[in-house]
Amino acid sequence: MATRRASQLITSLSSPSRFPIGRCLSAFSSPDLPREFTPKSWQSNPQCKCSINKAFSFQRHSFSSKIERNPSYSLLNSDDISYFKSVLEEKCVVQDEERLSVANTDWLRKYIGSSQLLLLPKNTDEVSKILSYCNSRLLAVVPQGGNTGLVGGSVPVYDEVVISLANMDKIISLDKVNGILTCEAGCVLENLNSFLENEGFIMPLDLGAKGSCQIGGNVSTNAGGLRFVRYGSLHGNVLGLEVVLANGTVLDMLGTLRKDNTGYDLKHLFIGSEGSLGIVTKVSILTPAKLPSVNVALLACGDYLSCQKLLVAAKRGLGEILSAFEFMDSHAINLALTHLEGVTNPLPQSESKFYVLIETTGSHEANDKAKLEAFLLHTLEEGVVLDGAIAQDISQASTFWRIREGISEASVKEGACYKYDLSLPVEKLYGIVEEMRLRLDGTAKVIGYGHLGDGNLHLNIMTPEYTDNILTKIEPFIYEWTSAQRGSISAEHGLGFMKADKIHYSKSAEAVKLMGSFKKMLDPKLILNPYKELAAPFFTDIIHALNISLHLLFIPYPAMPNIFS
Amino acid sequence: MATRRASQLITSLSSPSRFPIGRCLSAFSSPDLPREFTPKSWQSNPQCKCSINKAFSFQRHSFSSKIERNPSYSLLNSDDISYFKSVLEEKCVVQDEERLSVANTDWLRKYIGSSQLLLLPKNTDEVSKILSYCNSRLLAVVPQGGNTGLVGGSVPVYDEVVISLANMDKIISLDKVNGILTCEAGCVLENLNSFLENEGFIMPLDLGAKGSCQIGGNVSTNAGGLRFVRYGSLHGNVLGLEVVLANGTVLDMLGTLRKDNTGYDLKHLFIGSEGSLGIVTKVSILTPAKLPSVNVALLACGDYLSCQKLLVAAKRGLGEILSAFEFMDSHAINLALTHLEGVTNPLPQSESKFYVLIETTGSHEANDKAKLEAFLLHTLEEGVVLDGAIAQDISQASTFWRIREGISEASVKEGACYKYDLSLPVEKLYGIVEEMRLRLDGTAKVIGYGHLGDGNLHLNIMTPEYTDNILTKIEPFIYEWTSAQRGSISAEHGLGFMKADKIHYSKSAEAVKLMGSFKKMLDPKLILNPYKELAAPFFTDIIHALNISLHLLFIPYPAMPNIFS
Repeated sequence: MATRRASQLITSLSSPSRFPIGRCLSAFSSPDLPREFTPKSWQSNPQCKCSINKAFSFQRHSFSSKIERNPSYSLLNSDDISYFKSVLEEKCVVQDEERLSVANTDWLRKYIGSSQLLLLPKNTDEVSKILSYCNSRLLAVVPQGGNTGLVGGSVPVYDEVVISLANMDKIISLDKVNGILTCEAGCVLENLNSFLENEGFIMPLDLGAKGSCQIGGNVSTNAGGLRFVRYGSLHGNVLGLEVVLANGTVLDMLGTLRKDNTGYDLKHLFIGSEGSLGIVTKVSILTPAKLPSVNVALLACGDYLSCQKLLVAAKRGLGEILSAFEFMDSHAINLALTHLEGVTNPLPQSESKFYVLIETTGSHEANDKAKLEAFLLHTLEEGVVLDGAIAQDISQASTFWRIREGISEASVKEGACYKYDLSLPVEKLYGIVEEMRLRLDGTAKVIGYGHLGDGNLHLNIMTPEYTDNILTKIEPFIYEWTSAQRGSISAEHGLGFMKADKIHYSKSAEAVKLMGSFKKMLDPKLILNPYKELAAPFFTDIIHALNISLHLLFIPYPAMPNIFS
Repeated sequence: MATRRASQLITSLSSPSRFPIGRCLSAFSSPDLPREFTPKSWQSNPQCKCSINKAFSFQRHSFSSKIERNPSYSLLNSDDISYFKSVLEEKCVVQDEERLSVANTDWLRKYIGSSQLLLLPKNTDEVSKILSYCNSRLLAVVPQGGNTGLVGGSVPVYDEVVISLANMDKIISLDKVNGILTCEAGCVLENLNSFLENEGFIMPLDLGAKGSCQIGGNVSTNAGGLRFVRYGSLHGNVLGLEVVLANGTVLDMLGTLRKDNTGYDLKHLFIGSEGSLGIVTKVSILTPAKLPSVNVALLACGDYLSCQKLLVAAKRGLGEILSAFEFMDSHAINLALTHLEGVTNPLPQSESKFYVLIETTGSHEANDKAKLEAFLLHTLEEGVVLDGAIAQDISQASTFWRIREGISEASVKEGACYKYDLSLPVEKLYGIVEEMRLRLDGTAKVIGYGHLGDGNLHLNIMTPEYTDNILTKIEPFIYEWTSAQRGSISAEHGLGFMKADKIHYSKSAEAVKLMGSFKKMLDPKLILNPYKELAAPFFTDIIHALNISLHLLFIPYPAMPNIFS
């Protein structure tokens, strides 16, 4: 059986083709939405709007409690506006309703704040003056990059002053020998990548939101994305940061060195802290060389164990050229094939339980292609893979990626969709999907897919409509299960406003306590991005000191806040 | 000319050979000493002893001030010993003079403490009890791993209690799918690598001291080493830590996930903090797949600009298989050829100013070798490289590495040797070597070599004997020059005791102030590894509170402490 399929593959490989690196070869992985759902495009796409509204109604359904505005924060007054106008250009002090509406609304239209002021500083000094003033005046602020986050971290909850980094978009330098880029925080990721590609480099991260998201936001949320399996996290790639602290202090950690063992490496505390410890104003980052050879294959596996074996084999056999390892179960791929127009199964004879998309990126086209072909032949002969095909041109490669990318889009076309983004040890990763199917006992459709190479599962549960009955079967079970496996309830999206009260599922009590101490030390008046990242109970002492009515501010676990009613 | 040399290379490539990954292919890079200088071997090597003594006498020469014992720390008494014997096995409470002598003395015999107690806990709970007790009793401690550091970070300065992690050497788990190893902090690096190689993985770091150094120490010092250019820093590879804080609190951050965006990533604060914020007790780390194909080439370049061009070309042409890019100037290579027995120049026709050693590691022998050959031919034709040779077997590869590795050993055979380990932007890296030659105006021999791929320069200055006159020409100029380029005065060795008062050359005042705040928060009684990492002036308020006589404790910049007289 394996031999026959191997010979089939050999046939399909008889006319190998090359295709250059291209945008269409990139999967949309973070946030877990199809590529069309970018801020630029979704507003003009009725289909996407419809999908978003469905997701939104789910969220409304699950929020049943309230969080009140922290009354210790000052209310904006005309003196404040005058001060900001004395510090910034007048056009950078925005009170226009339409522009404020955009700044107040998150990408999914799920969180809508009511800020009355948007500030657009042009340099670090202006950011420093703004924060110093806000800190002294007890005016809460929310830093905003491209506003493409999915957990409500980048929009105001109430009337926080929005500080947008959009005007700080200058490239400062590129060390062409070591590929080290230094730039301002407001640079759009795609612009940086385009600039680098002309110089023979690429950014070490790539996201579906690249056309809008900014590098400062990427750093502040520790964005993962497509190139993670190859180039690793931002903790490994960011070489230096400039950060403005809550009191206006400019913290210069903007090194451009690969090695520097002089004291504590403070910048890591700001990577992924979601703007709650300081505002990132400049970034230096290691950028890999741009490599010319990209290949994509779609493979079928009979069981989840084979997917794991394939991952191990790919790490050894493809080793240094492996650039993506994405998996989908048959429920997921069938959903995509059902709902996406013009998409067909490249393995029509196969009815396997699992599918894996492998991408390689390397420096030598002929060698890389030959390596991939030999690898696939070997895994077919070993029976790890049951069937497979290598894309013969850029169009085929796009089709393969379209199936993987389209799953999320397809999943919201069946009615209600409960979406989870989990990080788990790979060996246990599919267990929660099987467990959930048993638990829901046929009352819902459960699909599992994601970045297997990173241990990142996207679990979607679809029912005709949202019901409390289904939700109580899912939560808190799914978080408890994840916690029991020492997994993470937020693999790449962060905590933001949405999950601030769920951190205890993934972090120890002592670690959370220490986080609270860092927050208190760096932002003692809690002006930076309030109501997010860490839930309010960690700051009772400060809030006491600020004379806040506790009964207004705090809600017990596990109730979720609702800012919509 | 280039064509002729290219044809020479082609000739030398006519009988390509393969060689497996082997220890002898590894360069000794961190610490910057020849591989023979391991704790296991130097004691039996009179030549090495001699070299060490020379280095030692230099250090004695440069230390001209004193630091007194912090009198606020308690003196050890019999009740303390009784307590420790009630917590640990009796044999793990060591007061034996000979064993204490080893624990009190650092690898280079440069720093010698006078601790009267060595504790060898067997698990985290014992570490916690020890620290909780020491914190309440105000007994200072020094955590000790393999004691292979070069900056006096792992030995007591006075009578600090030594807490060795040597008994905590268990491997806890290996996720064979994702290559994630979890182990106790006392595991010896080489043992971990041997264990992993049997499972098809390798550690992402490799050091000359691998036979003695421990993973907890590697993490605490953010060790760099040989594989840095390929796999990056420990900040990118360490996935989780368990750390015991000064007050005995066990901080569980021992995740084994590649992605986890739930709150601040606290573990990074402990990576490279040299045991001054907590004691690392467990580590989880991402381990790359073991790849079968290794090739080594030695190339000659006419000028430093060509070395940079070669680095850029290697990153693009060799891309994903590049695993080392080491450079040496002609002064450095000639020193090695002069002083090392049995070492000859593999490029005898070449009298170039610079030499570069390139190593590749990949998953496909034939492809990788062909790629390297094509790359070298291209760079020869372009004139970037003037001459070159690829090692044809493991013996030749060892010879090439022996030249690079032997430079440090050779450098201490000429008399006095002033050694510096700097991190600089690659474009400016060789400037300090040229500047220093001009400055010393022929009164000293100046060589430059190091890990060019990481921007890490080893600058050695050799004179017949140590003199104040030479030293004042070098320092503080070399630190000031490095600082002006935003370089680091300690690329991979850390600050330890040796450079605690020089941090300001590489870090901003605000960053250092913040480091001090973190130290105060996590170790308010300053019991963890005192007199190191951050100099005492940052803690005046605490020391006041602890009722210390300031005039005894503090010395003004830039005087260096001397613990030998």
